Amino acid sequence: MKKYQIKADDQVTLSKFDPDDTDNFKKTASDKEKAKTQTKSYTKKIQQLQERLYANGKYSLLIILQGMDTSGKDGTIKSVMSCVNPQGCQVATFKTPSEQELKHDFLWRVHYSAPEKGHIGIFNRSHYEDVLITRVHGKISDKIAKQRFEQINAFEEMLSENGTTIVKFFLHISKDEQKKRLEERIRNPEKNWKFNIGDIEERKFWQDYMDAFEDMIRATSTERSPWFVIPANRNWYRNLLVAQIVASALESMKLKMPAAPSNIDFATLKIE
Amino acid sequence: MKKYQIKADDQVTLSKFDPDDTDNFKKTASDKEKAKTQTKSYTKKIQQLQERLYANGKYSLLIILQGMDTSGKDGTIKSVMSCVNPQGCQVATFKTPSEQELKHDFLWRVHYSAPEKGHIGIFNRSHYEDVLITRVHGKISDKIAKQRFEQINAFEEMLSENGTTIVKFFLHISKDEQKKRLEERIRNPEKNWKFNIGDIEERKFWQDYMDAFEDMIRATSTERSPWFVIPANRNWYRNLLVAQIVASALESMKLKMPAAPSNIDFATLKIE
Repeated sequence: MKKYQIKADDQVTLSKFDPDDTDNFKKTASDKEKAKTQTKSYTKKIQQLQERLYANGKYSLLIILQGMDTSGKDGTIKSVMSCVNPQGCQVATFKTPSEQELKHDFLWRVHYSAPEKGHIGIFNRSHYEDVLITRVHGKISDKIAKQRFEQINAFEEMLSENGTTIVKFFLHISKDEQKKRLEERIRNPEKNWKFNIGDIEERKFWQDYMDAFEDMIRATSTERSPWFVIPANRNWYRNLLVAQIVASALESMKLKMPAAPSNIDFATLKIE
Repeated sequence: MKKYQIKADDQVTLSKFDPDDTDNFKKTASDKEKAKTQTKSYTKKIQQLQERLYANGKYSLLIILQGMDTSGKDGTIKSVMSCVNPQGCQVATFKTPSEQELKHDFLWRVHYSAPEKGHIGIFNRSHYEDVLITRVHGKISDKIAKQRFEQINAFEEMLSENGTTIVKFFLHISKDEQKKRLEERIRNPEKNWKFNIGDIEERKFWQDYMDAFEDMIRATSTERSPWFVIPANRNWYRNLLVAQIVASALESMKLKMPAAPSNIDFATLKIE
């Protein structure tokens, strides 16, 4: 798990991370089953710890998911996070900004969607789009990108100082794997609806995206708000890692069930 | 299931509904297990149908939960709805309105929280509080209450005409059962945090609440937006009924996976 965490000031080279990596797991049916069983034990842990998070109502967890089209952002949420109580979990998806959103700074809509105390918030895409797609298409200069990195770090530090634990996942797939997944969306009528012709256009900028991701991860992985580069060609290994890291993030919060309200004398209280 | 659905213009008498009712299920361990197994098959159904709802992105489901304190609103959401993909589900809890909310009509904050297309929305309490607690404490007259019933019916009809299927649950517990549950919150340190001294105060108005609920259900159960009176003394039976009714509501929407986008020629499309 630690091996995928990017330390502050790490000069990450994305091409050194193998999207096909499954570490100690072989790519066999039996190892895949083993991974799934482990994932289940982590989602159980997440479920238990979410209850404490909710009961306390003081802290929150923010999970940020980024990655190329078809990298499995939706799939990760479905597979790993369908275990949680929806009353304590919000997912925010950030698509092309609306006209109104564009009238504000790029962090405005994101800040509004930050998880409330006691909750888990999941960002499916995020403010990081504003240093990715915008950059790849030359909508912002390198200078502005650098400024935004600093603004993002300050923003996330503020959230963290106010009780939000943050984990950020870059779901790392290979260009070949994307091809397979896009073809599957074309081939399989059940998946046609997920096909977006724009994805083919963006795919042409693959290397530019990789450069932008690399730069982003280098500049915005901090101790309090780390990036994890998740090898994501294999869904089952991706799910295992994400579940493990989310469970561990919740554990690191050392949550206890809250103490009884001090203004009530439970010893003498009687219900008529 | 049908036996708990209130038809439009039914002159419901709440006292005729037994909160302890478990219909064909005996109150034995083995029947309880049987009910739990059935509940699981319904939550599986909900999971599958939610995916179609989401993929279509055209319709939504709104689930409204009302009931006395400790009647199991939170527990129902946790037990029945933890199966869903949080990306397609939002829970809105309506507590005492904020100062800003009070500056608007009572439906304003509720409307804002209505589920988006493709999603399941859950209201933990709702606009119905404005014909319940307000009424019990004489904050609104019978005339205003009647007016609000009409306004609520018009509001829900509008939602329904715009693609939202609505199901409303009154979780019906007995006064004795509430006593047990409040005592459990006092006795069990793990549950202390849920204890609210205000609940004891409200409990004194039990009969007034029953009258207000009865009136509300009579006035606002419609064909398109029916109330279900759920016997809720037994959590396992409550969960079974709610899961069954939610699954059936989703089924009644006759959702199919959406057709492929018509502007794309899937037969000739090639990925480079």
